[in-house]
Amino acid sequence: METLRLYDFLPSGNGYKIRLLLSQIGMPFERIEVNILKDETRTPEFFSKNPNGKIPVLEIKSGKYLAESNAILVYLSEGTEFLPYDRFLRAQVMQWLFFEQNSHQPFIAPLRFWISILGKAEEYKEAIEQRREFGYRALKVMENHLQSHNFFVDERYTIADIALFAYTHVADEGNFDLKQFPAIQAWIERVKTQPRYISIKEEVQH
Amino acid sequence: METLRLYDFLPSGNGYKIRLLLSQIGMPFERIEVNILKDETRTPEFFSKNPNGKIPVLEIKSGKYLAESNAILVYLSEGTEFLPYDRFLRAQVMQWLFFEQNSHQPFIAPLRFWISILGKAEEYKEAIEQRREFGYRALKVMENHLQSHNFFVDERYTIADIALFAYTHVADEGNFDLKQFPAIQAWIERVKTQPRYISIKEEVQH
Repeated sequence: METLRLYDFLPSGNGYKIRLLLSQIGMPFERIEVNILKDETRTPEFFSKNPNGKIPVLEIKSGKYLAESNAILVYLSEGTEFLPYDRFLRAQVMQWLFFEQNSHQPFIAPLRFWISILGKAEEYKEAIEQRREFGYRALKVMENHLQSHNFFVDERYTIADIALFAYTHVADEGNFDLKQFPAIQAWIERVKTQPRYISIKEEVQH
Repeated sequence: METLRLYDFLPSGNGYKIRLLLSQIGMPFERIEVNILKDETRTPEFFSKNPNGKIPVLEIKSGKYLAESNAILVYLSEGTEFLPYDRFLRAQVMQWLFFEQNSHQPFIAPLRFWISILGKAEEYKEAIEQRREFGYRALKVMENHLQSHNFFVDERYTIADIALFAYTHVADEGNFDLKQFPAIQAWIERVKTQPRYISIKEEVQH
C-alpha cells in the first residue's frame, strides 16, 4: 500500500481529527503542511485536490483525494474499534458528526481562529459576538449528553468523540468558558488518556 | 416492523431530504408536522427526541430516535441503490454530505427562510448579505463538479444528490440567481425525473 498523505495545517482542529485517529490506529502517513494563512488552499493546484479549497485532504493513493474531515474519519475508521459495526450505533456516530459540522464547529472554531491564531479579536468583534450564543448552545447540548454518558456513543471512545474533541478542548482559545461545563471537562480528560493520544500541536512520530 | 415516524416541517429542505428518499425507497412512514415557527422543537418533550432541538427526527421504533438529516439519509440508504457499497465511493458520498452541512446549507437555507418563509428580507438584510457570498461559493463548487459529471458520485443518483438538491433547487427563494449555473440547472432537471420523485411541498402518498 502506498503511504497515506495528509494535506494539513498544524493549528487546524479539522486537520487534528485525522492526525489523532491515524496515530491511534497506528497507521503511518506523510503530513504536508499547507499554510491557509497564505491562501495556499486557494490555488489551482490545491483546488484540483479539493474543489472546496479547504484542508484537511487525504491522498489515499496517487491522485485519489478525499476531503471533509468527518468523511475522512468515517473512511479511516471503518472496520476498526473507533466506528461501531451495529447499524443504529453507527447512525448515532453520524448524528454527532453532522451535529459537529453544522451546529458546533461553525460557531466555535472561527472564534479561536480570529482571537488566538490571527490575534484580531477587535477586528472580528461583531462576527465573534454573533456566533458566541450558538457556540454555547452547542456546548450545552454536549454537556447535557455527557452528564449521563462517558462518551458520545455506546459508552466507548469513537470517532464521534474525536470529531467533537478537536474544537471543544481548545474552545478556551476562542474565549469560551469551559468551567461552566464540568461534564465536558471530565470527558476531555478521558479523551486525553486514550492510548496513543497526541496533542493538537504535536507532530505524529513514527 | 413498526412504522417509521418522521418529525418534520413541510417547508424544510432538511425534512424534505428524508421524505424524498423514503418515497424513492418505497418505505411507508408517518409524518408528524412540528411547527418550528411556533418553537415546537424547543420544548422539553421535543428535546427528549433530539437534544439539539431541530427537525427532522426519525423515530425508528418506539422511543428510538435519530436526528441530523444527513445521518438519517445514510441510515436509511444502507443496502439500497442510493448509497454505493464500494468504500471509496461511499467516502465520496460522505464528503458531499459534510460539504452540504458545513459549506452549503448554512449559507443558502437561511436566506430562503428569512426571505420567503418569514417574509422578513429587510429585518435580516445584514445577515443575508453576510452569507450570500459563501452561498455563491458553494454553488460554484457544485457547478464546477457538474460541468463534467451527471451526478455527484459514481455517475449515478445517490443520497449525495438528494442532500444537495434539497436547498439548491429552491435557492431562488433566497434570491440566489441559478441562471448563472447551467450545469446545476440541468442536474436539477435530472433529479426531478428520478423514479418516485416528489416535490418539497408534497405530502407523500402511500
